[in-house]
Amino acid sequence: MITEHDVYQELAQKNDSKIVLLVMDGLGGLPLHVNGLTELETAHKPNLDRLAREGSSGRAIPVRPGITPGSGPAHLSLFSYDPVRFQIGRGVLEALGIGFPLRPDDLAARGNFATADANGLIMDRRAGRISTEECIRLCRKLQENTSLADDGYQVFVEPVKEHRFALILRGPGLGGKLTETDPLVTGKPPLPVRDESGTPEGAATAALLNKWLDQARRVLADDPRANTLNLRGLAKDPGLPRFPDIYKMRAAAIAVYPMYKGVARLVGMDVIDFDGDRPHHQVAALKRVWADYDFFFIHIKKTDTYGEDGNFDAKVHEIEAVDAVIPDILALGPTVLIVTGDHSTPVKLRSHSYHPVPTLFWGPDVMPDGVQSFGERASERGALGLFHATQIVPWAMGYAGRLERFGA
Amino acid sequence: MITEHDVYQELAQKNDSKIVLLVMDGLGGLPLHVNGLTELETAHKPNLDRLAREGSSGRAIPVRPGITPGSGPAHLSLFSYDPVRFQIGRGVLEALGIGFPLRPDDLAARGNFATADANGLIMDRRAGRISTEECIRLCRKLQENTSLADDGYQVFVEPVKEHRFALILRGPGLGGKLTETDPLVTGKPPLPVRDESGTPEGAATAALLNKWLDQARRVLADDPRANTLNLRGLAKDPGLPRFPDIYKMRAAAIAVYPMYKGVARLVGMDVIDFDGDRPHHQVAALKRVWADYDFFFIHIKKTDTYGEDGNFDAKVHEIEAVDAVIPDILALGPTVLIVTGDHSTPVKLRSHSYHPVPTLFWGPDVMPDGVQSFGERASERGALGLFHATQIVPWAMGYAGRLERFGA
Repeated sequence: MITEHDVYQELAQKNDSKIVLLVMDGLGGLPLHVNGLTELETAHKPNLDRLAREGSSGRAIPVRPGITPGSGPAHLSLFSYDPVRFQIGRGVLEALGIGFPLRPDDLAARGNFATADANGLIMDRRAGRISTEECIRLCRKLQENTSLADDGYQVFVEPVKEHRFALILRGPGLGGKLTETDPLVTGKPPLPVRDESGTPEGAATAALLNKWLDQARRVLADDPRANTLNLRGLAKDPGLPRFPDIYKMRAAAIAVYPMYKGVARLVGMDVIDFDGDRPHHQVAALKRVWADYDFFFIHIKKTDTYGEDGNFDAKVHEIEAVDAVIPDILALGPTVLIVTGDHSTPVKLRSHSYHPVPTLFWGPDVMPDGVQSFGERASERGALGLFHATQIVPWAMGYAGRLERFGA
Repeated sequence: MITEHDVYQELAQKNDSKIVLLVMDGLGGLPLHVNGLTELETAHKPNLDRLAREGSSGRAIPVRPGITPGSGPAHLSLFSYDPVRFQIGRGVLEALGIGFPLRPDDLAARGNFATADANGLIMDRRAGRISTEECIRLCRKLQENTSLADDGYQVFVEPVKEHRFALILRGPGLGGKLTETDPLVTGKPPLPVRDESGTPEGAATAALLNKWLDQARRVLADDPRANTLNLRGLAKDPGLPRFPDIYKMRAAAIAVYPMYKGVARLVGMDVIDFDGDRPHHQVAALKRVWADYDFFFIHIKKTDTYGEDGNFDAKVHEIEAVDAVIPDILALGPTVLIVTGDHSTPVKLRSHSYHPVPTLFWGPDVMPDGVQSFGERASERGALGLFHATQIVPWAMGYAGRLERFGA
């Protein structure tokens, strides 16, 4: 089957253009009242408004209509990988999210600490949402008292947040299609890991995981806070097609948080190190590596954080801080500048949402579409319409003159 | 697998309606300055503006976001054939483009004259882009001094432009999945034609082509301008589903240039002969055959030509010349009139581009959508949104009452 990536890979050609993808996490918002303005509409952002006036706007659907994405799938979509087709194990995302240096042959799982009764039946699947400090203590206890060294495998037990941790197995021949242990309801015992691939590696990996689970549950048995655990999303790095190979662009990621560095690395981008965590630090890093790459992914986290905190003013101010660095980005001379979010995080909802994300394209060959400002409602009138986020990179490739003509 | 064509074929029914698809090649444009107007927006076109006011507008994506189409794929898309799915060999398109009367069993290839060093390594893949006059001379030389008559095959060597020519083989049992001879880089020898289909016809056809290549290279060996050649896109007419069969419409093509007649013929339309090459000649032909067909494809070439020439005023004037014949088309009483382009050719870029193409539908059952004129920005506000060009014929079928109800 010919995939969309195949079509673009066939046409992609190198040139001297530079594409900047500026992502404000959770950018999209909602008015708090029927006649109110969204966070983005409220912000004083003369530079973003200028880009919208000179370019084309539209709204991106991250996954599918009505679907609220997690950060991993939302970013895959921005990088042109349909997250429905390219499903990444939760374990891999969890490991990437905490900055664990995952290797291609590592097997990762998301772990949940839980509580069980005397018969081993799950009473609380989240162990009363223990604190992250408790999670760190429990992980250390497991790290020190479990081992698969006799079988030739390394084990890493890494805390994430509250009851969540990541388990990573490292060694030869891990694989298979592995089932989860969480029964998903209380009053039932954890399930064993089973392999559904029917391969020798799958069977061996399932046995190895069940052996570790036995050890781990014995170690936790008399812990006052969490006397059992479950594993979900057991998988390896899926080995995605590499972004630099599809689009023939050297790609750099300029992100502060491990999760976003991790997803960028998963598709083959180089992750740029830099000091500081504010937008102007990121633009300084952009300037430093400008000559070395063709495509630059800049990830701004705090717009999402303030959305989840329900802090309208702080989200507005963070958008304004991004607006303030736009002239420095333009001074570098990008051929195409895209400003978007990975998903919406309306302060009103205090969570990620499914609302389409306002998106703008700016560059010399981008149609000035009559839209006068950057915002949710303004972008409804834009030239790019309502589109799937996987189309962002393809449009940018066109605007950058990086696609050969299709057919004679 | 049920295709979209299957769905429409199942529902298509005959009636007395008439559908006119008026295509201005390369219609879409760009403003030359941020605050400027496009070619279409500049044109004085009261009739087209009236159609937009009374009908529905939108913008068509010819292939995929960001992808600039060639004329062949762009027209396939207008005729409802997704060009990613229905890929036509370059040889077939090249032959159609020069008006060669290709038969279903002919095998066509695109040829490139090239130069090689004493060891047969390619030095220039385009022979220094020789003039078309040189190309004609070289083709004549090959036509006169090569032959596959002993094997029972006719050979046609037809000049195209500069270093490009078309090779057509005619005879029984040609086929296979044939590889190209162009090594794509200099310093390497041409590759032999190989068959990847594994069929007896494929193997025989590859052998036949390699035999001809040997002869041809010997004929060219001491030529001062091009001492070798390569073949690309070796294939037969792919045998597309026929437009008249899918939609149960007798379809006529009224085009001046061979390429567009060729693509229309490829999908089973009848090509109408007529004198003259201006829009009013085409409308006279339309009037003459009005009673004999249900669907009429009218192709206006010069909008694209002037776009590629970078002649803003001439493109504007050609749009105005088309506007002037609209009343004559309306006088015939079409049920549905569609005005669109196959792709954009902005004067600003002097080439085909990926920008969506302004499109309007007019007819008694088309929603008057509040759009007041025909243009790139006006059509952004239109009822049809941003859509794939393959949807044009289906919408027209609906507006013409030519589709039965789907389900009870």
